[in-house]
Amino acid sequence: MHWKQINEHVQVWLREVSRQLLLGRKQELQVATKSERTDLVTNIDKQVEKYLVAKIRATFPTSKILGEEGTKDKDLASSQGLLWIIDPLDGTMNYVKQRDCFASMIAVYENGHEKLGYILDVTAQKLYWGGPECGVFCNDERLPKVADLSLAQGLIDVSGRMLMNNYHNVCKMAQTSMGIRVYGSAGISFIHVLTGKTVAYFSHLHPWDYAAGKILAHAQGLSVKGIDDSKFDMLSSDDVLVATKNAEEDILKLLG
Amino acid sequence: MHWKQINEHVQVWLREVSRQLLLGRKQELQVATKSERTDLVTNIDKQVEKYLVAKIRATFPTSKILGEEGTKDKDLASSQGLLWIIDPLDGTMNYVKQRDCFASMIAVYENGHEKLGYILDVTAQKLYWGGPECGVFCNDERLPKVADLSLAQGLIDVSGRMLMNNYHNVCKMAQTSMGIRVYGSAGISFIHVLTGKTVAYFSHLHPWDYAAGKILAHAQGLSVKGIDDSKFDMLSSDDVLVATKNAEEDILKLLG
Repeated sequence: MHWKQINEHVQVWLREVSRQLLLGRKQELQVATKSERTDLVTNIDKQVEKYLVAKIRATFPTSKILGEEGTKDKDLASSQGLLWIIDPLDGTMNYVKQRDCFASMIAVYENGHEKLGYILDVTAQKLYWGGPECGVFCNDERLPKVADLSLAQGLIDVSGRMLMNNYHNVCKMAQTSMGIRVYGSAGISFIHVLTGKTVAYFSHLHPWDYAAGKILAHAQGLSVKGIDDSKFDMLSSDDVLVATKNAEEDILKLLG
Repeated sequence: MHWKQINEHVQVWLREVSRQLLLGRKQELQVATKSERTDLVTNIDKQVEKYLVAKIRATFPTSKILGEEGTKDKDLASSQGLLWIIDPLDGTMNYVKQRDCFASMIAVYENGHEKLGYILDVTAQKLYWGGPECGVFCNDERLPKVADLSLAQGLIDVSGRMLMNNYHNVCKMAQTSMGIRVYGSAGISFIHVLTGKTVAYFSHLHPWDYAAGKILAHAQGLSVKGIDDSKFDMLSSDDVLVATKNAEEDILKLLG
């Protein structure tokens, strides 16, 4: 399928998603916990996933879908046709506590290949989108390529949990860099690497956390690596590193 | 002196500071290091400090001034008249690497008492300002009081360095909270506590990093504490905790 046939629909859906998320953050949210006390889900996460799944099914009925909030079709690993991986609201904790610094993400695969990725920074009203066939854009403007900086030349974005446990020797990576940042939204962190604001982002991620960012990062000429290679199959969770090629090389040498 | 007499000038100066910082971030910067490799200063930091110092001296000639970039009048500790503590560009690393997430800050003391604080979030075009006599505003709107949440109910903002060294048992504080965030700008981190986006911010700070935020936090009914009380005299560096009263109580119990 031509990427434009998919893109024209997704761009329209994401405008509606933006509207729903902006409206939701003004309201009192129904907040529930999932795997642990700090793993939150709200009525808005569920509402947006429901909206996107309905749109995908109505427009591309043979699609398979994996969504953070429970959508999981059978035979996702089958490589035929369109596969959608969606995170309706990434950074739910930020959405609940800060009403800021959150994203909505969609990844599209076709016949097992990366097709299109979308990360919507709702507060900034910036949609980062693209893929191998069209390149990467921020809204209507093509995103400039980022400089291939080393770890020592830039900031690194990591998960707070990894830092506290010095997981994979991440403290040494942080000390080698120009400093660490922790934002609490994988989507926002991917945007920072895509735009050259950080040279790397390293975190334990689920497929819906990294699927869209991976497609965009590849199209930007950045490296994306699952530390446990065997699990990095677009349907499993892994410790994921997205970085400039130079920073990736530096980080892999430090990896514990 | 009536606070309005000072405020009408500072508001005008900060519009010019905003213009200079926005212009500067589009340009190639002259970047130098200070105490260490990651302690940066640019031509814009110096230019903005020079501008503010000239305006203060011309308008309030008997003022004493302490600025991050070298301005340091004699007898700062003398408690008579106006004392200005200024950070022309807070979050210089972010300014250089991200062109985002930085602030400009001004604190005004009169006869040793807190008078007015200003934190300008340049990217968001939001000026947080106020003091004990007028309350706290964001641009022209009065800032709502924040809920007195406990540590377990909110996010905590810490310095990455403290986290990596578990300084003062900060990892336990992070684990007790809903999560940690690291932004790399004291000004932006103070704003997050002032607006209830985080329940606490804990970092090693210089006077220009905390002076404005301390005045605003007090006027917002928040607690500000120097961990080494004897050094917390508005002219010394200290480990500074700004928090809701409940979160402060929780954090002090965990302090190592």
